[in-house]
Amino acid sequence: MTESTPTAGVILIGNELLSGKTQDSNLQFIGQRLADLGVRLQEAVVIADIEATIIATVNDYRTRYDYVFTTGGIGPTHDDITSASVAKAFGVRLVKHPEAVRRLERAYQRAGLSDERMKMAEVPEGATLVDNPISQAPGFQIENVFVLAGIPSVARAMFDSLAPTLQGGPAIVSESVDGYLAESSLAKRLGEIDQRFPDVDIGCYPFFRNRRFGANVVARGTDATAVREVIDLVFELMDELGGEPERPD
Amino acid sequence: MTESTPTAGVILIGNELLSGKTQDSNLQFIGQRLADLGVRLQEAVVIADIEATIIATVNDYRTRYDYVFTTGGIGPTHDDITSASVAKAFGVRLVKHPEAVRRLERAYQRAGLSDERMKMAEVPEGATLVDNPISQAPGFQIENVFVLAGIPSVARAMFDSLAPTLQGGPAIVSESVDGYLAESSLAKRLGEIDQRFPDVDIGCYPFFRNRRFGANVVARGTDATAVREVIDLVFELMDELGGEPERPD
Repeated sequence: MTESTPTAGVILIGNELLSGKTQDSNLQFIGQRLADLGVRLQEAVVIADIEATIIATVNDYRTRYDYVFTTGGIGPTHDDITSASVAKAFGVRLVKHPEAVRRLERAYQRAGLSDERMKMAEVPEGATLVDNPISQAPGFQIENVFVLAGIPSVARAMFDSLAPTLQGGPAIVSESVDGYLAESSLAKRLGEIDQRFPDVDIGCYPFFRNRRFGANVVARGTDATAVREVIDLVFELMDELGGEPERPD
Repeated sequence: MTESTPTAGVILIGNELLSGKTQDSNLQFIGQRLADLGVRLQEAVVIADIEATIIATVNDYRTRYDYVFTTGGIGPTHDDITSASVAKAFGVRLVKHPEAVRRLERAYQRAGLSDERMKMAEVPEGATLVDNPISQAPGFQIENVFVLAGIPSVARAMFDSLAPTLQGGPAIVSESVDGYLAESSLAKRLGEIDQRFPDVDIGCYPFFRNRRFGANVVARGTDATAVREVIDLVFELMDELGGEPERPD
């Protein structure tokens, strides 16, 4: 991966992700989309709805990564403290964003816009809105931090809204090959291939399918030719070992 | 949550979790089981297969939490660097564990125990084994750090093997109630209930089901009576607002 590939960190916020109540599905989606955009996701963290923790984590990540994405905690209830905590992380006031107020007024025309609903229009001073085509209450961006909802459908729609504003590097391409071989029988020569291609990430993952064990080898990098070459070599290796290799794509 | 509740941190190791290739399913399982055991999972982090990152993260977590669990990177291939990195984090040598060697010899009786397979018998000096009833190659424990496989079925089996050795506090109980109400219509009075019960964690999560929007309120804590009382109050509140409350359990 070249130096010019921008980096990202993801902060998943919510007690429900740590208690086992909820299975996160935002990380995989964001990881895939960032790779397509040529942004390298370097780390993700799952934290509780605790103000001091959110502040410390946001301030840590925003200095370490080019882009930071948070999910969760921007709804109307007492446990939704992400927006206020991010404002504190940046040392700015939490303010009602006029355009967010207008969107909520439209969305709650019939039900009425209570104080609690109005809370969803609050953003750190200086933040810009991230559109929410699903349920209107917006996310926001402040400097390099993007604050998204936790509900997967909304998080995805918000990510798609903001994606065109990201400056990606060369796209990170990925190819893979499957073979019915134990990982350990590939290990030595796969390690040699890995040595020869320092700019390609090569991962090997065991699977169990059709009652047979196998290994899935994935090559990733910004140099499509090198990625293809690695997979061709692994294909040959698997074939030679009787692993009946197949490219899943 | 009382002071006597032990804490835990989880480190999910693997490029494939950050690239979007793989959906993690170990965190939810570990979170649920820890709650049952009376251990509070406070944070989880997803990191790449990079030695310096693994060392720094393990050393950070093992001082911050009573128990640390890692998943991933203990297989036979070049990208499996967790065991060696954990040894470096503790400043000890990586050694072949005689009992692990015996188990691998049995498991690979027919296929043969190559150098790469033998790598799976290596643990930090002083570590004890964590049984792997699925595929034999063991995990290990060193001080308060438990190193587990990444494959979910194996990670679960290993967790079940080690669970009896954990010292939990009072079990963390959880109750919940669903109602067909917007989160925002509950927000104010739910916030008041939350204020009254500082030792109960109350979370509110929107859902969309049978073409209707609703909110799921979850109360968690070690005081079962207080948890029940909170859910009774929320049930009444939802009923009063016409939300047709139901307890999912």
